[in-house]
Formats: sequence, structure tokens, C-alpha cells
Amino acid sequence: MTQILRARRGEITPEMQAIAADEGLSPEEIRGKVAQGLIVIPKNKRRNTRPVGIGSPLRTKVNANVGTSVDWPHADVEVAKAKIAWEAGADTIMDLSTGGDLFRIRQQILQEIPLPLGTVPVYQAMVQAREEGRPVVDITTDEIFQTIEVQAEEGVDFVTVHCGLTRKALQHLQREGRVTDIVSRGGAFHAGWMLHNDAENPLYEHYDRLLDLALEYDLTLSLGDGMRPGSLADATDRAQVQELITLGELVQRAWERGVQVMVEGPGHLPLDQVELNIKLQKSLCQGAPFYVLGPLVTDIAVGYDHIAAAIGGALAAAFGADFLCYVTPAEHIGLPSKEDVRQGVMAARLAAHAGDLVKGQRAAWEWDRKMAQARKALDWDEQIQLALDSPLAAELRRAKNPSSQENCSMCGPYCAMRLVDEHLKER
Amino acid sequence: MTQILRARRGEITPEMQAIAADEGLSPEEIRGKVAQGLIVIPKNKRRNTRPVGIGSPLRTKVNANVGTSVDWPHADVEVAKAKIAWEAGADTIMDLSTGGDLFRIRQQILQEIPLPLGTVPVYQAMVQAREEGRPVVDITTDEIFQTIEVQAEEGVDFVTVHCGLTRKALQHLQREGRVTDIVSRGGAFHAGWMLHNDAENPLYEHYDRLLDLALEYDLTLSLGDGMRPGSLADATDRAQVQELITLGELVQRAWERGVQVMVEGPGHLPLDQVELNIKLQKSLCQGAPFYVLGPLVTDIAVGYDHIAAAIGGALAAAFGADFLCYVTPAEHIGLPSKEDVRQGVMAARLAAHAGDLVKGQRAAWEWDRKMAQARKALDWDEQIQLALDSPLAAELRRAKNPSSQENCSMCGPYCAMRLVDEHLKER
Repeated sequence: MTQILRARRGEITPEMQAIAADEGLSPEEIRGKVAQGLIVIPKNKRRNTRPVGIGSPLRTKVNANVGTSVDWPHADVEVAKAKIAWEAGADTIMDLSTGGDLFRIRQQILQEIPLPLGTVPVYQAMVQAREEGRPVVDITTDEIFQTIEVQAEEGVDFVTVHCGLTRKALQHLQREGRVTDIVSRGGAFHAGWMLHNDAENPLYEHYDRLLDLALEYDLTLSLGDGMRPGSLADATDRAQVQELITLGELVQRAWERGVQVMVEGPGHLPLDQVELNIKLQKSLCQGAPFYVLGPLVTDIAVGYDHIAAAIGGALAAAFGADFLCYVTPAEHIGLPSKEDVRQGVMAARLAAHAGDLVKGQRAAWEWDRKMAQARKALDWDEQIQLALDSPLAAELRRAKNPSSQENCSMCGPYCAMRLVDEHLKER
Repeated sequence: MTQILRARRGEITPEMQAIAADEGLSPEEIRGKVAQGLIVIPKNKRRNTRPVGIGSPLRTKVNANVGTSVDWPHADVEVAKAKIAWEAGADTIMDLSTGGDLFRIRQQILQEIPLPLGTVPVYQAMVQAREEGRPVVDITTDEIFQTIEVQAEEGVDFVTVHCGLTRKALQHLQREGRVTDIVSRGGAFHAGWMLHNDAENPLYEHYDRLLDLALEYDLTLSLGDGMRPGSLADATDRAQVQELITLGELVQRAWERGVQVMVEGPGHLPLDQVELNIKLQKSLCQGAPFYVLGPLVTDIAVGYDHIAAAIGGALAAAFGADFLCYVTPAEHIGLPSKEDVRQGVMAARLAAHAGDLVKGQRAAWEWDRKMAQARKALDWDEQIQLALDSPLAAELRRAKNPSSQENCSMCGPYCAMRLVDEHLKER
């Protein structure tokens, strides 16, 4: 039985209990939202992790991607990155490995990192085909499903499945044209496969088979947006919206069967299209949790894409996105380093928090208020403890302020806080 | 004669010509907007710098603050920071020095950096009083004006003057209360002075004297927001809006006399209050150029405040802010290092550009489109050249991709761009 089916029977699971305690809400409210599909709890039946809830009215969550590539196939490094992301405060990890021993890295993360783990199973099918010297367009439908099942059996908690990239969406891409066509790797695979084989997307055509699998393991489906825009010029076009319409139908079918499901979204958007994209998804997908990849608000920020994504992510969260996929400073230029991973998580957490303030999250406002009070009191220990990244704040305080004086080196004796305080008290 | 007075006489100055060429607009349009006060050209008559226009419909501009403090009084370091900011693409520099030889650092920046220079003259008056062992509340009105005049004579192009922090605004602060009271150093000085001396703000009371000075040197006034909120809890309160109403009156008086003027704004704001703050300023100040300090969308981002400010700044620019003051990763914790300065400029330029896309700036869209096309073509040289920070992009490409292959190390042979391309061509 999945969390959603148990919720519908009126059962408050230990996972719902834990999430309610964590977020300061009633267990009954969590149960109700899970039953409706508005909150997902990505947790494979075979795995014992800290439960994380994604959806409204919960705190906005942050995912960190790790994973080997053909050029950098070292499992240990990626596991170390996953640990760094966990320590930096990521809520979930996705393993997007495409190089080296895929099983080993997944096993290590599943064993060593107590966060929900997501994958894109079709990557493994692609890697296997390549290792066997077969073109990826020869991958069979059975192979795709076998990969998903293997990973579900291993304990993977959620999977990105590009079920909505149908022939209809592809026709829009071909007719309307795009500057950057398809930038999703999974989306590109499916599009290539469909064009080469002149056939419908197997994950769409055999969606019930996918739902059977998801039911068996309580595997949460993350419906991928293979048609997400890869540049501002392609934002919110017909192919993207066509896919989203299909994803809305697939959300409903998942709910009907009792499968937990969320929906993935853009991508690259000018910042005035963020609100529209969130509202469109919430409407077309009846409030299903929304997982956004950025969105990046410009294409030119090579080396600073974590900031471009923080801008879009903060706005997305403010308008109702539930789950932000981090973007690191290495995006568009190479595989992230460990430090890139840390920077990416911090920027995404900052964005999620800025959005939570707009969502009216009480804990978020409390956090900011305490920091403001600590600033006013020139209480540096408290400021460091409350900082998004306490170790960094402590290091900066030490490095930049050699004397242990009350005020900081920026203003020194001209500290506005002190100036005003003296004279307001004087009166 | 100031730029605004010459524009009103129908004269197209060399500065207007240069700005028109730089921004791809007609000189006559620039002249018209300068005449109306909607564009300022901060350029002291005594100085010969590259003209920079600030206001609608121009590109959003970025200011970088440098300046010594009592703990870090080294002029050379701050001049070096100003150079780094210039090289990183800042449009203007503000020297906020409060330590060491204030004249020397200003002279060096004026001579070595060909960007408009702004200051907060009252800092110098405070430093002089402190050096003489007098309390800052004993500073006389004449001393304040002498400091402004000395700096105008030296060639300073624009000055922050906290003319709108009146007794009326102060009363609101005292009655309503705030978590962080006043965080503007200039604002704190004026508030302290007014409370101690039981008198009105001298820059408000003798505003015409200030306008005389500004007229003589074509000094652009940047009307400071001494009451800007220093935390989200204090955002958009009565004291802040009261000051803004007064600033609107002072803008009109400046325009009536033919003085160039812009208005400074917050500060700290939850992101859903950014739009309202920009629209309120534009309405109360009749479209005067708006110079925002951030705004920071959360208080907890110690060490990442350049990102918190990029989120607020991008939104502000999108809604019509004309000029973004950078915030560095050192904000709230100490004086920025050279690398902090570079990071701050880059984050602010990214935010300004994200806003320019929403403003419909043709050059901004062209830039993004070219980058998207270079990505699609896997043209790495072009991507590096088009990057916000080309040297960094080149370094990252070298470091992260040892082989000189076409695709990048993130996706390797699974590059979506290539996968799709092959199969779209195949059809």
C-alpha cells in the first residue's frame, strides 16, 4: 500500500507523523493532503530514511544532483558530493550517473545518505546499450521497464520518467522550431527513440505498467519535462505546454491508481514568465507538487548559474513551486566540484527560504526576525548560529574582524545600530 | 548649466550623444528624457569621464561601493578594489571611506577610474569631528555643507544626501517602533543629530542651499533613504513611506531649479513587496530614476547576501528600478575583499540583465539568443566570449574539460544537444 492509499483509508502513517512534527502542522492535515495527492512522501517501501514531504503547505524543499559521467567515472567522489549536499542542508539527492559502476554508486548513496534518493532510470538503459555497442534507439520497451524495476528493487525513492513527451508534443517542436530544441537528456533520448522508431513514447503508451511498478514499491513518479525550454527564446512555447497538458492527464491517472506523483518544470524562463508557469502547472495538474529545475532567468551567466537559478527559484517558490532542483556554478560548463555542490545547495536553500517567506511560513519569518534582533543587539554569536551557512559565517567573522569588538569592520565606530541606539535612548 | 537645463533649451550635449550611441537610442530621445528628469547623467562639470545615463528606457546600471574603514584604512587596497569593480563591469563607483586619508583615496579614484564617482559627504564630516575629539552631534550645518562643497570641487559626480529623513519620519519610527531601527549610517547620523539638537534635518531645512551647490557643479543628488528597512520585519512601514513622500517633494524642487536628481530605495524586503516599492517610488517621485540598495529578500544569508540581493535586484529592475547598488558576500559581516567586490559586481550585473530582459531591452535579448545559439552549436569559444564573466568561463572550461572534445564533461556522449540533432536530421 502506498502512502496515498493509506491516507485515503484514514491512516496516519509514521512518515506523516514525522513530517507533521517537522513542519509544525497537524498529522491529520498532512494525511488529508497526502490523500489528495497535494503532498508526496518519496520513500520506497524497501528503504528506511528520514521522511520528507513535498507539496503545499510544507516548507519548499531542495534537491541536489550528483553523478558520474564518462569522463569522471569515480563513484567515491560523487558519494562524497552527496554527503556534502546532505550536510549543506539538501532535502533529497538525485543520482544522475552515466559513467563507471552505476550500481555501486547507487548502493553507496542508498546506504550512506539517509535522504530520499531519486534517479532517471533511462540513463542506465542508455549506458548499458552503449557498453554493449548498440545504438540507444535500439533499447526495447522491456529494457526501459526492467531498469526502472531494478532501481525500485534497490530502494530508489523517486524516479524521473519522461512520460509526457508524446508525438503530439514532438510535432509542435518540429513545426514551431526552437533555438535549443531539447536540452533534457531523458527528453532527448525519448525524442530520438520516437523519431527513429516512428513510434509513440513507450512510457506514455505503457503508463499503466509504470503505475503497477510504482504501486508495488511506493515509488514516487516525478513526471519529467523533456520539453523544458533550454533557453529564454524557447520559453513557454507550444511543445512545452503540450507536454504539460499530457502530464496533467497522467497525474490524474496516477492518483486514480493510488500512485504518488509530482511534476517537473522549467528550465530557462525570463523572470516575468515564472508566475505564469507555476500557475499553469498548478491548474493543468490540479495542484500536484511542482518540482522546478531552476528556472534560470538568463542564459549568459556561465559560472554564476546558481545565482540565475536562485532568482528564478525564489520567484517560483513564492508563487507556489514546492521543490527546487539546485543548479551549481558549474552548470553549462562541466561537472560540479564538491565546492560547487555546496554553493549550489546554499543558493537553492536561500531561494527556497525567500519563497517560504512569501508563502507565509511562520518558521521562515521567525528565523528572519531572530536574525534581525541579533543584528540589532550586535550579538555576533547568535548571528553566526542563525546564518544559512553557520560555519562560513563564523569563518568570515574571524577573518574579517581581527579584534573582537562589538561592531564589524565595515562601519567600525560609525555603526548605524549604535549611533541610533545611543540617541534614541538619550531621549 | 546642468545637463537638465541644457536639455530643456533643446541642446544635445556630447554626453547625451555618447549615451545615445552606447544604448542604441536617438540623441533626441535622450535629450527629452534628461529634460524631464527621467534620465540623469552623473558627471561633475570639473571631471572628464565616460558619460553614463541612469533612468528609463536605458539599460539598468550597477554601482559598486568601495571605501576604507577605521580598522582597514589602506587607500591603495580600496583603489585596487575600485579598479576590479570597473574591470568587472560596474557602471559607477561610490567611495564610502571612513578611515585613513579620505582625500587621498578620493583623489586616486577620481584620477585613475574613469567612471562616475559618488560619495556620502556626511561621512567625512563625521570622520573629521571624531578626529577632533568632538561628538558627531556637534557637527554644524555649515560643516555639512562645506564637506559637500569640497567634494563637489574635487569633481565628485553624485552625492547621497539624506534630505528626506525629517522629524515627521522620525516620529513614525518612534511611535511604530522597528526591529532594526535605522541601518543607514547617514540616516543614523541625521536621526541622532536631530534628536540630540531637537532640530529639523539641516539638509531638509536648507535644501535650497544644496540645490545652489548642485547647480554650480552639475552635481547629481542621490536622495538617500535613511529610513530604509534594515530587516524584513521593518519593510514598507510608515517611517519609510513618510520619507519617500518627502523625497517626492524634493525631487520636484530639484527639477524646478534644474538640478539632476535620483532617489534611493530599500534595503530589505520580502520579495512580494519589491514590485510595490518600485511602483510607489515611481509614482510618488514622478518617475525619477530609482537607485536600490539590494533589496535583500531575506536576512539570514550571511556570506551569500550577493545572492539575496541579486534576487531582489533582478525583480526591482524588472519592475522599473534603474540603478542597482551591488551587495557583496561580505555584507553584514565585514569589509569586502577584492574577490568579494568582483563577486558582488557580477551578481548585480546578472540581476540587472535579468531585469533588462523583462524591460524588453533589445540588446539583452540579443545577448541571450546568441548564447543559446552558441550552446546549440556546441561552440565553446563563442560561449566563453559571450559569458557574463568571460575569463572565469574560460578558466572553468579548461579546468573541467581536460580533453578538447565538443561536448562537456557533464553529459559526455549523452549530450542532449547532439542526441536530438542526430535524430532530427535523420528524419
